[in-house]
Amino acid sequence: MDRPHVVIVGAGFGGLAAAKELAGAPVDVTLVDKNNFHTFQPLLYQVATSGLASADVAYPVRGIVGRQENLEFRQATVIGADLEAGRLHLQGDGHEVADLAYDHLVLAAGATTNTFGIPGVEHHGFPLYNLADAVRLRNHVLERFEAADADPSLIDDGALTFVVVGGGPTGVEVAGALTELFHMVLDRDFKHLDVGRARVVLVEMLPDLLTPFAKVSRRHAREALEARGVEVRTGATVDRVRATSVELDGGELVPCHTLVWAAGVQANPVAAALGLPTGRAGRVEVAADLSVQGHPGIWAIGDVAAIADPKAKDARPLPQLAPVAIQSGRHAARQVVRRLDGRGTEPFHYLDKGTMATIGRSRAVAELPLGIKLRGFPAWLAWLGLHLLLLAGFRNRLSVFVNWFWNWLTYDRGPRLIFRSRE
Amino acid sequence: MDRPHVVIVGAGFGGLAAAKELAGAPVDVTLVDKNNFHTFQPLLYQVATSGLASADVAYPVRGIVGRQENLEFRQATVIGADLEAGRLHLQGDGHEVADLAYDHLVLAAGATTNTFGIPGVEHHGFPLYNLADAVRLRNHVLERFEAADADPSLIDDGALTFVVVGGGPTGVEVAGALTELFHMVLDRDFKHLDVGRARVVLVEMLPDLLTPFAKVSRRHAREALEARGVEVRTGATVDRVRATSVELDGGELVPCHTLVWAAGVQANPVAAALGLPTGRAGRVEVAADLSVQGHPGIWAIGDVAAIADPKAKDARPLPQLAPVAIQSGRHAARQVVRRLDGRGTEPFHYLDKGTMATIGRSRAVAELPLGIKLRGFPAWLAWLGLHLLLLAGFRNRLSVFVNWFWNWLTYDRGPRLIFRSRE
Repeated sequence: MDRPHVVIVGAGFGGLAAAKELAGAPVDVTLVDKNNFHTFQPLLYQVATSGLASADVAYPVRGIVGRQENLEFRQATVIGADLEAGRLHLQGDGHEVADLAYDHLVLAAGATTNTFGIPGVEHHGFPLYNLADAVRLRNHVLERFEAADADPSLIDDGALTFVVVGGGPTGVEVAGALTELFHMVLDRDFKHLDVGRARVVLVEMLPDLLTPFAKVSRRHAREALEARGVEVRTGATVDRVRATSVELDGGELVPCHTLVWAAGVQANPVAAALGLPTGRAGRVEVAADLSVQGHPGIWAIGDVAAIADPKAKDARPLPQLAPVAIQSGRHAARQVVRRLDGRGTEPFHYLDKGTMATIGRSRAVAELPLGIKLRGFPAWLAWLGLHLLLLAGFRNRLSVFVNWFWNWLTYDRGPRLIFRSRE
Repeated sequence: MDRPHVVIVGAGFGGLAAAKELAGAPVDVTLVDKNNFHTFQPLLYQVATSGLASADVAYPVRGIVGRQENLEFRQATVIGADLEAGRLHLQGDGHEVADLAYDHLVLAAGATTNTFGIPGVEHHGFPLYNLADAVRLRNHVLERFEAADADPSLIDDGALTFVVVGGGPTGVEVAGALTELFHMVLDRDFKHLDVGRARVVLVEMLPDLLTPFAKVSRRHAREALEARGVEVRTGATVDRVRATSVELDGGELVPCHTLVWAAGVQANPVAAALGLPTGRAGRVEVAADLSVQGHPGIWAIGDVAAIADPKAKDARPLPQLAPVAIQSGRHAARQVVRRLDGRGTEPFHYLDKGTMATIGRSRAVAELPLGIKLRGFPAWLAWLGLHLLLLAGFRNRLSVFVNWFWNWLTYDRGPRLIFRSRE
């Protein structure tokens, strides 16, 4: 164990990419995550809407990188650090505390929900950022239908009204998948309930959905959602959330038992807790080579980092997306090796391969390099292909594919389970 | 709603069989279960040992029978009844209370774990009777390996010792599946942990495992388990359980963090709570036609009922197995129809189609009618075939099959996740 020790915090897309990049390098790697599994975040909305089972989007970390010769996995939460001494303070699942020394630290801790301090969101809102969020939302949605079936007067109270806040890809995908779940599946399940009274309201502050997309994609997304019955409210904001209502700006009160909060994220607070320099939304400020300002042995990547985007007009950092996390994770790993070799580091360049968002069954928008814009069924096929490709690195791809194909063919949703694993 | 109203409590094998049998009958049926899903209990041990995901053994009730014209599903717990008035008191998932009137009541509420009052079992033992049990055991087993990997001194403390109590099919299946999980999967996952030190101890009070089976099957089961490294302790009992030890009769203290309790079940306490006549282990006493003694409009079937077994030498009722539940559920439903038609009822006859138990990968014992006894690989194929057939009535069969085939081929276990959906 004389080799330099690289500790990677977080087994998301970025942390895994960094870990894999270090395979074969003359270092010992410890990958730390509070869960023993990686979460395939882009498909969480499918768990929340009963399309996929939780195990379909969660992959044991040890199964992905645990057999890498120079890598150890450690299931623990980072609760602090002594940056001078190069030591992390960890807490295990059974609350036991331990120290972990590092020579290089790659912080890939991701992000959490940002409620922007809007009253009631913290307490009543349903975020959709990790697996527990997704399962909690699934249970709640199905419960509302069971409750309304037993007592239809609850419909007027808002039991079947679902307000989704945030017109980015997550909000658009959830809204589209919810309305499909209601009208294609639950409508058959609940024979005596007027499922047609179920409402999905998508609220977005800006004048358009999917703002980073081109105008043609934005219009298509809106039209496709509205064709499926989603009420799209752009230029609107939420002022306050209560258990059975949402108050919009201007005072409009929407009776509603379910607010899905997809309006924004902030960096994992561990970054600030460790005393690293953070900027807007708690993101760690990094140099061009992704090292943290003032801490040459510490690197930050993915959602937790504010990585400069030379193409941005308004000095915004790169968006918090999986491709940024993967590419920055690989880059940071390479810089660690260069530094250990005594070589100089290189600046990070992000290669934008495009973005996409699905809008339910057989509909999507996709913007690829070279100005290629797809929408409708071709975009959905592109989305499907890309996600199957991304999933190919993981074990559950076969099960995901089988479930998707089954759902698509039969309009069924197998995992519509109200289940909590209470301890 | 002038038609007679049949209420079925419990959506296990028995309740579902009764519900399906009433399709097309001139009655209105309400099926009540506290969960919105049916649990495929024979495969719970595979969830507990990371072989299948929880969604693979849980099927939405509304997907199975919800489209039956004369059937309503109601997710609720029975909290009491007014048997004179023919009314059940229900509590919904959100704690709202309601009454449900019935003309005929079919009680198919199943069973729960029986700890036989042994000190510590209630608090420290891991039962394996419902889905939450299985997920809780899976989380705990994997956690013990994570903890021992972070601190190997825990192995001496019992972190990797797993005591399974009960030498019936469940105990044998869990013990076999645990040792496979350890030696085929976790041994690769935990490179620096001496997984060879993990112990599985199977404790059975009687002199043999699988007592209802023939001698040749019992011997095969024992040999197959021992060949896989399970320590079989027959003629032994557990006196007391603590967080990190199990005390056997004679005072032997086994350091152990995990006690799986598969030693026996008792009828769902709802039977006694409703004031129905109950006998040994809380099972409801029924007449030959399965009606409850003294309550001609109430029927009890499956695990909750003590159904006389004319072939038993010791006056024991029929065993608490899925085939008994299914056949008795169908019979009770037919008797309800006969009674409503003004016809006399018929006595129930159980047709024993045999029993089987798996002992891990490619090994099983099976005893079929006509004295056919299988063991080893042929028995395992029979087990596989039967379970695929049983699963064929449910939606997830494809996913189960894919997961099984993958596991069998690759010695992998995808859903080895430590995950709790905390609310």
